[in-house]
Amino acid sequence: MKKTNLFILFSLLSFFAMAQEKKSFTLDDLLPGGRTYSQLQPKDLYTSWWGNRLVETDLDECREIDSQKGSKKTLFTLEQLNQWLGADEGKALVHSCYNVNFPDPEQPLAGVVISGKEKNGERTFVYTTVNFQTGEKTWSQEYPADATLLDRSVSSRNLAYVKGHNLYVVTAEGKRMAVSTDGGNDLVYGEAVHRNEFGILKGTFWSPDGQQLAFYRMDQSMVPDYPQVDITTRIATTYPDKYPMAGEAMHKVTVGIFTPATGKTVWLQAGDPTDRYFTNISWSPDNRKIYMIELNRDQNHAELACYDAATGQKEGVLYEESHPKYVEPLHGLLFLPWNPSQFIYQSQRDGYNHLYLFDLSQKEEGSERQGADGATYREHVKVTRLTSGPWVVKEVIGFCPQEKSLLMASNEIHPLQSNIYKVRVKDGKRTLLDNGEGVHYGSLNADGSLLQDRYSSPTVVRNINLTHVKNGKTCNLLTAEDPWKDYNVPEITSGSIKAADGVTDLYYRMVKPVDFDPAKKYPTVIYVYGGPHAHNVEASRNYLTRGWEIYMAQKGYLIFILDNRGSEHRGLAFENVTFRHLGVEEMKDQMEGVKFLKSLPYVDASRLGVHGWSYGGFMTTNLMLTYPDVFKAGVAGGPVIDWQYYEVMYGERYMDTPQANPEGYKGSNLRLKAGNLKGRLQIIIGYNDPVCVPQHSLSFLRACIDAGTQPDFFAYPGDEHNMMGTDRVHLHERITQYFEDYLK
Amino acid sequence: MKKTNLFILFSLLSFFAMAQEKKSFTLDDLLPGGRTYSQLQPKDLYTSWWGNRLVETDLDECREIDSQKGSKKTLFTLEQLNQWLGADEGKALVHSCYNVNFPDPEQPLAGVVISGKEKNGERTFVYTTVNFQTGEKTWSQEYPADATLLDRSVSSRNLAYVKGHNLYVVTAEGKRMAVSTDGGNDLVYGEAVHRNEFGILKGTFWSPDGQQLAFYRMDQSMVPDYPQVDITTRIATTYPDKYPMAGEAMHKVTVGIFTPATGKTVWLQAGDPTDRYFTNISWSPDNRKIYMIELNRDQNHAELACYDAATGQKEGVLYEESHPKYVEPLHGLLFLPWNPSQFIYQSQRDGYNHLYLFDLSQKEEGSERQGADGATYREHVKVTRLTSGPWVVKEVIGFCPQEKSLLMASNEIHPLQSNIYKVRVKDGKRTLLDNGEGVHYGSLNADGSLLQDRYSSPTVVRNINLTHVKNGKTCNLLTAEDPWKDYNVPEITSGSIKAADGVTDLYYRMVKPVDFDPAKKYPTVIYVYGGPHAHNVEASRNYLTRGWEIYMAQKGYLIFILDNRGSEHRGLAFENVTFRHLGVEEMKDQMEGVKFLKSLPYVDASRLGVHGWSYGGFMTTNLMLTYPDVFKAGVAGGPVIDWQYYEVMYGERYMDTPQANPEGYKGSNLRLKAGNLKGRLQIIIGYNDPVCVPQHSLSFLRACIDAGTQPDFFAYPGDEHNMMGTDRVHLHERITQYFEDYLK
Repeated sequence: MKKTNLFILFSLLSFFAMAQEKKSFTLDDLLPGGRTYSQLQPKDLYTSWWGNRLVETDLDECREIDSQKGSKKTLFTLEQLNQWLGADEGKALVHSCYNVNFPDPEQPLAGVVISGKEKNGERTFVYTTVNFQTGEKTWSQEYPADATLLDRSVSSRNLAYVKGHNLYVVTAEGKRMAVSTDGGNDLVYGEAVHRNEFGILKGTFWSPDGQQLAFYRMDQSMVPDYPQVDITTRIATTYPDKYPMAGEAMHKVTVGIFTPATGKTVWLQAGDPTDRYFTNISWSPDNRKIYMIELNRDQNHAELACYDAATGQKEGVLYEESHPKYVEPLHGLLFLPWNPSQFIYQSQRDGYNHLYLFDLSQKEEGSERQGADGATYREHVKVTRLTSGPWVVKEVIGFCPQEKSLLMASNEIHPLQSNIYKVRVKDGKRTLLDNGEGVHYGSLNADGSLLQDRYSSPTVVRNINLTHVKNGKTCNLLTAEDPWKDYNVPEITSGSIKAADGVTDLYYRMVKPVDFDPAKKYPTVIYVYGGPHAHNVEASRNYLTRGWEIYMAQKGYLIFILDNRGSEHRGLAFENVTFRHLGVEEMKDQMEGVKFLKSLPYVDASRLGVHGWSYGGFMTTNLMLTYPDVFKAGVAGGPVIDWQYYEVMYGERYMDTPQANPEGYKGSNLRLKAGNLKGRLQIIIGYNDPVCVPQHSLSFLRACIDAGTQPDFFAYPGDEHNMMGTDRVHLHERITQYFEDYLK
Repeated sequence: MKKTNLFILFSLLSFFAMAQEKKSFTLDDLLPGGRTYSQLQPKDLYTSWWGNRLVETDLDECREIDSQKGSKKTLFTLEQLNQWLGADEGKALVHSCYNVNFPDPEQPLAGVVISGKEKNGERTFVYTTVNFQTGEKTWSQEYPADATLLDRSVSSRNLAYVKGHNLYVVTAEGKRMAVSTDGGNDLVYGEAVHRNEFGILKGTFWSPDGQQLAFYRMDQSMVPDYPQVDITTRIATTYPDKYPMAGEAMHKVTVGIFTPATGKTVWLQAGDPTDRYFTNISWSPDNRKIYMIELNRDQNHAELACYDAATGQKEGVLYEESHPKYVEPLHGLLFLPWNPSQFIYQSQRDGYNHLYLFDLSQKEEGSERQGADGATYREHVKVTRLTSGPWVVKEVIGFCPQEKSLLMASNEIHPLQSNIYKVRVKDGKRTLLDNGEGVHYGSLNADGSLLQDRYSSPTVVRNINLTHVKNGKTCNLLTAEDPWKDYNVPEITSGSIKAADGVTDLYYRMVKPVDFDPAKKYPTVIYVYGGPHAHNVEASRNYLTRGWEIYMAQKGYLIFILDNRGSEHRGLAFENVTFRHLGVEEMKDQMEGVKFLKSLPYVDASRLGVHGWSYGGFMTTNLMLTYPDVFKAGVAGGPVIDWQYYEVMYGERYMDTPQANPEGYKGSNLRLKAGNLKGRLQIIIGYNDPVCVPQHSLSFLRACIDAGTQPDFFAYPGDEHNMMGTDRVHLHERITQYFEDYLK
């Protein structure tokens, strides 16, 4: 008896001690948008390259960082900057140095944006450069305050921008030119097209010398507007939102080249744009050619075409790639700085994303060759495989002309990692430039001699190093302290299980309840995404745990996240196994996760929940309806319910058209399973979601009502596909409460 | 011990006996739209007047009912009817006798609607009359199958109908004429206007001889469309839905008179229709005059005007009524059959709805006189008060020319009752014609000698009598058996408490849990409506209990319903105490109900819930936010959240405009109380609600999100202000589950 009492006493003491020592998180602490979120983030370093030099752009001053020792030297203060800009006493024009840039690699010029004078009722901004050695203003450029998509050529200082769907250019001399005048809801100029698929991030592309501007023009007059409702007007109104749905009419894209010196536009003669995708626009180093990757609507054939920039004439096709499922070019051409006839091309033709060296100076006969898993290709110029193997190149960081090499990040060491390598272009020889752990992001200085290497790992919160590319010598700039050290942080682990195919490794993350007791049984929530172009588990800080998982662990839940087949960074076959029947393989893998969870004594299999957003909302709803006896409660955010309501580009890549794949669309139409619902399922949407339009969820509610089942529902008026700011905190309170109500 | 054991044994035995004897209800049994609802309704009798004779129009035959004995004699069978209509063997043209009518008071004619031949791609219906003594078809009239708002003159047999917002007439001879051709979303013809307020139920009015057709024309081009979204199209679309919001632009109404014989339309010269309401259109017995009650937008002044039907010229104003709050004429003129210069007018000028006899042959000087509570009026013809007292005339049933009297229903005996009186027009002498209990509905035969009296009371399920108006002699046609006799029906009681003013009696209904045990404490739900033009408690069957209350009582809840001040049938001051601050007095009264509930030992005051729809949704939300510590859970359906989103007619009557009453609108704007929410509140709407448009609820969700509170929400896509059919059952499952989850 005495022993037990002592034990209890000890337990109580340690409990109170712990409770005193360790703090608990609020959702505001854990979620972006939360009021205290930034206070609990690891320390960071804001930097910008000034040619070959790294500058810390801090709140109140800019400091040059010594590349050998990491020591810092003040270049100028915010106060000085404001003085030079002509600010009145005590009235700053610029409020921090965070956004200062250094437009000239040699000259001591700092570039900032300040408010300009109002002109004809138009508010303006002015980009101004100041010599921070003399304090003299050297140049400025004015543009409307409501200009968007600003794109300034470093070479020519010509600026392109979009306003009211029309494209404008302001020259270095301040001359403003309208590239288009008929822009509007039906015709858009200078904007990213094809809904940002195929790696398209922008709609303007300056030639290297900045004297020509390639730009997209998209005719979407044939695409219906989804009726999005704005409830903030006196009487609710709709606003136009062109949304091309799978199998329906698609917009038509053309590419123009505007020359500010002549005011003329030439159009690329790419032929009828109907049902075609024009992507990955790249300039040749001599400003004379434009390259573009062109896909058919079926997305199973891509051609790399070359055009004469002066005439718009097509000069030929350099390369073709086909696949029985789909091809998906995502990267433009990267010309070697030391050889203008060679460029780096990225392709998954051999099963994983790898680098290929194209040589324009050597023609090839272009006969059809076999890639991996049915892929075929034709090379019309000489192509050399630069990297290969069962891992993926994630990013090309840049070139090092001195060594004739490039820097890239890959997950060669481990599928969950991202490490930086120097790749010799001559023979593809790779040299690891980082410590071989975790997830690294690199950026290079002007001549490719210095690498800023930012990384984290399950044991490293945030580390920033400056690495000499030549010899790998590294200087540490920041090792952030764990901002959560005073908090009761749950145990976060990672591991792998086999996929439903019995062969493939799948990686999971597990967040155990705080004060975990292996003798107890815990309610368990699976968080899922599951779709292409995304992953949830990686070897970065806390295995990429989301703040909400920590919150749930604190509330006594076990959280489990598994990246199923269909997700990214594991190669094409891993991803495209889902082709034409989205959801099926993904769910099989998630059910392997459930099997694994059920094998753990501390998981309460009678209290399994599931939650996900977007594709994860589709997965959540699908899992609830397909395995109604497995999941007791689920929360599906912004879900896809029926792929015919999703957009053409993404939708048809994975599903083909509803006309061509009726069985596949039927099999993944969650309305048809509405009658299966047994557990509690809450659907949550942004009421103005332009990505998974409300028709998905609303048609599902209708189907459930007709089938006599009872889902729950919530909508965030004014919000789009994801909730931001305080709405994000509200949302996660909501999600948490649902599991508290129905899973605990 | 023995005694106790015996008692337990006895209790158990009686429990099992009861359980065996008495059945439980499903929601399908209890709700209109439920699959088994009709099987549990009291037996009914379907009848139609044939001149002075009452005919039972049953499924398979029509029977004349003897007015002395109630015995029945077959007039004809469904089979005969089909044979006479020329139906092929075994292929009926008419499937029941329920909808047979008898258009001629003397001739043995049966009128039915059958499908016609398709003409120029247009489907048609044919109204056909058959002589049921000779079996001969006597007359028929064809019209498009998609015609709506059919209005046939009994005198002339001219038919008016609306198609595509245009008005058409088909003459007795079959000539089809378009009265209008420019109808559409902006201009509508022949439809009820002013959103059916002011007693407006239709848009066409035949003259007594059927040779002239008065009709409404409404120009709503200046009224914005609320963007209602149809999610059933391939890509969601909006459809037009003109909705004039309080304080905003209002439609303009004019009245035309179309004469089929000339094909000409004359317009009433009523002056500028801007911000005016034209209502209660009535014809003079000689077909020469049109009467119309005209209100200003402020709704505090009404004029009874007279027009020459041939020219449209205004001939004068017969009567005016004003009130510092509002006047609300709801009834047209009823001319005495025995004196074409006298008519019955209904008014609340003396505080309660009463009957007044107007005599056109005697002019008055029209000086201003005082009514009750600040009301004023001017009489330009002689007016005699026919009824008066602190009770209301609910309906004029008809006239008895032989006795120069009229029949009406009033609640003179008890506020919860409706009883039928004969009123002598000479002196207003009243004679009760029914048994003085319950709620009676009457209908009269052609010469006013026979009254069909349908009624129910708390102890009478349904009773139908045929009463001789002259002497009150009654013959019973139906005494329905209680269809719930085999079910475990909860105890339903009624009583009264004092309103928050300490003076006024308010009536409640209470539904006790089944197997009620006064020693227990029950979760209690208040069901509320609370708005004008409605009541929830009356002395009819089960005190008007709704099926859902029975269901909840079966689940172990106590249900309480109180008609607060502001509701109908209690006089104008009882109703208009809410003027310019809707919700305030109503809630005070409901809180008196809460006080009363808390005084009952079997009410668990820690588990109080509230539920209501429409105005009741406004009340529910308001109560949850105003008394957050009183109510634990609530379900608000189709609520008003902000009266500025409600329509002009109803909204401004009670609230004035937002411009004129900013304080009142602010005080009743529930968004401003969104931060008060503590209990669980579910808002439920028809996603396509055209009455309380979704902007109400969606703007409330936004306000809650911004305030950091967590209401729940559900929407029924495709449904409007009320859920019908199986959706109604689904809805009440949902409401019930919410209280099961959060109140039990």
